Amino acid sequence: MRVEVVAVGTELLLGQIPDTNSQWIGEQLAANGIASHFHQHVGDNHERIVLAFRTALARSDAVIVCGGLGPTQDDITRAALAEVMNVSLERRDDLIEVIRAMFASRSRTMPDNNLLQADVPRGATIIPQTRGTAPGLVCPVGQKVVYAVPGVPYEMTDMFQRAILPDLLARERASGATSVISSRVLRTWGASESALAEAVGERFDALEDDARVTIAFLASGIEGIKVRITARGDDAAHAARLLADEEVHVRALIVDQLGDIIFGVDEETMEDVVAQRLLARGATLAVAESVTGGLIASRLVNVVGASTWFRGGVVSYASHVKFDLLGVSEGPVVSALAARQMAHGVRRVMGADIGLSVTGVAGPEEQDGQAPGTVFVGVALGEILRDASLRLPGDRPRIRAYSAISALDVLRRTLDDTR
Amino acid sequence: MRVEVVAVGTELLLGQIPDTNSQWIGEQLAANGIASHFHQHVGDNHERIVLAFRTALARSDAVIVCGGLGPTQDDITRAALAEVMNVSLERRDDLIEVIRAMFASRSRTMPDNNLLQADVPRGATIIPQTRGTAPGLVCPVGQKVVYAVPGVPYEMTDMFQRAILPDLLARERASGATSVISSRVLRTWGASESALAEAVGERFDALEDDARVTIAFLASGIEGIKVRITARGDDAAHAARLLADEEVHVRALIVDQLGDIIFGVDEETMEDVVAQRLLARGATLAVAESVTGGLIASRLVNVVGASTWFRGGVVSYASHVKFDLLGVSEGPVVSALAARQMAHGVRRVMGADIGLSVTGVAGPEEQDGQAPGTVFVGVALGEILRDASLRLPGDRPRIRAYSAISALDVLRRTLDDTR
Repeated sequence: MRVEVVAVGTELLLGQIPDTNSQWIGEQLAANGIASHFHQHVGDNHERIVLAFRTALARSDAVIVCGGLGPTQDDITRAALAEVMNVSLERRDDLIEVIRAMFASRSRTMPDNNLLQADVPRGATIIPQTRGTAPGLVCPVGQKVVYAVPGVPYEMTDMFQRAILPDLLARERASGATSVISSRVLRTWGASESALAEAVGERFDALEDDARVTIAFLASGIEGIKVRITARGDDAAHAARLLADEEVHVRALIVDQLGDIIFGVDEETMEDVVAQRLLARGATLAVAESVTGGLIASRLVNVVGASTWFRGGVVSYASHVKFDLLGVSEGPVVSALAARQMAHGVRRVMGADIGLSVTGVAGPEEQDGQAPGTVFVGVALGEILRDASLRLPGDRPRIRAYSAISALDVLRRTLDDTR
Repeated sequence: MRVEVVAVGTELLLGQIPDTNSQWIGEQLAANGIASHFHQHVGDNHERIVLAFRTALARSDAVIVCGGLGPTQDDITRAALAEVMNVSLERRDDLIEVIRAMFASRSRTMPDNNLLQADVPRGATIIPQTRGTAPGLVCPVGQKVVYAVPGVPYEMTDMFQRAILPDLLARERASGATSVISSRVLRTWGASESALAEAVGERFDALEDDARVTIAFLASGIEGIKVRITARGDDAAHAARLLADEEVHVRALIVDQLGDIIFGVDEETMEDVVAQRLLARGATLAVAESVTGGLIASRLVNVVGASTWFRGGVVSYASHVKFDLLGVSEGPVVSALAARQMAHGVRRVMGADIGLSVTGVAGPEEQDGQAPGTVFVGVALGEILRDASLRLPGDRPRIRAYSAISALDVLRRTLDDTR
């Protein structure tokens, strides 16, 4: 089974919105071991949509079309599908009633435009709509199939998981494919991609001829570098075993050569990891931020249940706020001393057990004689007052984002050191 | 001229990274009035890359290929181009010297792998590399052309602007096309897409047969809804005149029916607009945030020069921080009273002229008897203590993001009301 994704919408070609759908579907297909060799974007034009569908059907076994199922004149995916299937469109009364009822449940009258969404190419089946007004479509074309779903991610993801993925997996099984893919992402902060590649290099090279297990590096910008291990087994247990063995191997190589840079796995964020450690020791946290301007606090409150351990923060952007509120001594505010005093001060002001602080220069100009990218992190934890100094690359937003995750990483390591 | 973008890289198909290159190039082409009807993604596989290139050349006049020019065995764009051009690859000594010199300037020795980057299909010209080690390629195929650039955005954007765009525009002129595109985005906050569509409806319909000017709505999630007006004139002055006339028309329709919802134009953000107003009246600002957890402050410090008018903020996540530090009276903290007191308190604590606050429920559970999405904004400005109550949709991160921009919008309107 080779699946091609075709995203329909002139706004994609004009760059007005990013195509997050193809990326999301690509990730889901890969996680389920289904091959995908091509994606396409095409605008809202009948001939060109038909051409894109025919191109996809010629080189892939199944096509997932996102977009063009809305209620306006621009939404012509249905008509293009009918042409590719060489059938006519049928307006289905049962679907009209479903759509009318959805409007009624929101105390609104269905505009006539929405009748279009009840059109179905003859021979197609529908994927019932639960989140929007347009049903999805499953369109057989010879031995191949085209699935059409709305471009709204909230509707698309639901239909993919509920109808498309099960159907694709059933087709895979019917075609005799039995291997199962399992993967694990190790999330790192603090090493370069080339340093990681070097650390894992021999293992990486040794694996090249072994399709069972693969290792990939993925620079994820402000979230660090991910190391993805993927295993293909004969069944789920086999894949899990291959994966677990490989993870032990890769972790040892990384930790031996680069130290404690693996902060989490899979979808775990740095703030998730910090939250787990704070919960485990029953400690509360407060943060004082200047260069990051609230970014650290806003990351922390994204963790569900943050109110258990997060007291709050002070964004001490003006120097006087550092002096007056946090008790920083007058003098250069971009310094290790100021960072320690900020951490100590915010812990006191917020009545928390632990204080974390960051002060630095985002640029473009230098400050207190320090170059852009100079950042100091402070931690106040019991009797411990610790600081760390960093040199971060990039422009203003990048320095700020790197500072936020770096500060959380300093806290993570401090919490581990003082267990 | 119809330009197709082909992004090469298995990581795109696997959804490991978003394809920001196609979006960026799409935006640049549209801004320069160059048509683009298709995009493709293809993995690092020789046959499939060749197929993608042939597909693109069959339906477009020019192809921009991003990716696959790196120094590893995975990087096979050069070989695929040679096959499509039906020529051989030539390893060029002059390019080897350039690459070797780039390594030397970083005090490193060129690995042998990088020799691959000196391979050029016979008949192609190069786009000299200034930011990375791989040169770009300009490959004639009959009357058509394929441009190949690295997938690293930092290198790609440079080569696009320096070499590809000028070449495309020269080809457009050579083919006799002379029209000039000009566009303007009106940024709105506080109305739904359908309400905007209704407000501009008649005008929108009247324009449908007039290709000179078009209006498009673009829901931009947490940044509101953009109304994009595009004009195609015979020359730049003509396009600018058409655009200005249409903008007057559209603005009047929106303001008449929906009030003061246009907060900025083009790339202006809500925080930019607030910053301009604060600078104009020479006032300083402090913010108190609970539900937004620092998001407002982190948006404000993104404005260059924020230190002139931004004092800082308090993230009062725990109720006690509201009572003890900000002087909120004990009682429900999700309330209009608490919002006013937070605004007043943070102004005092930070020594600012104006205080802005937000308190609310991000969910999933209710708080103080208030449902998720209930948000109160407070403003303290001179003798004025104002509050606004909002009901926002969505999950936790969305409620939080909507709260941040809504609070800034309340401040924007308050600043305008009290001029």
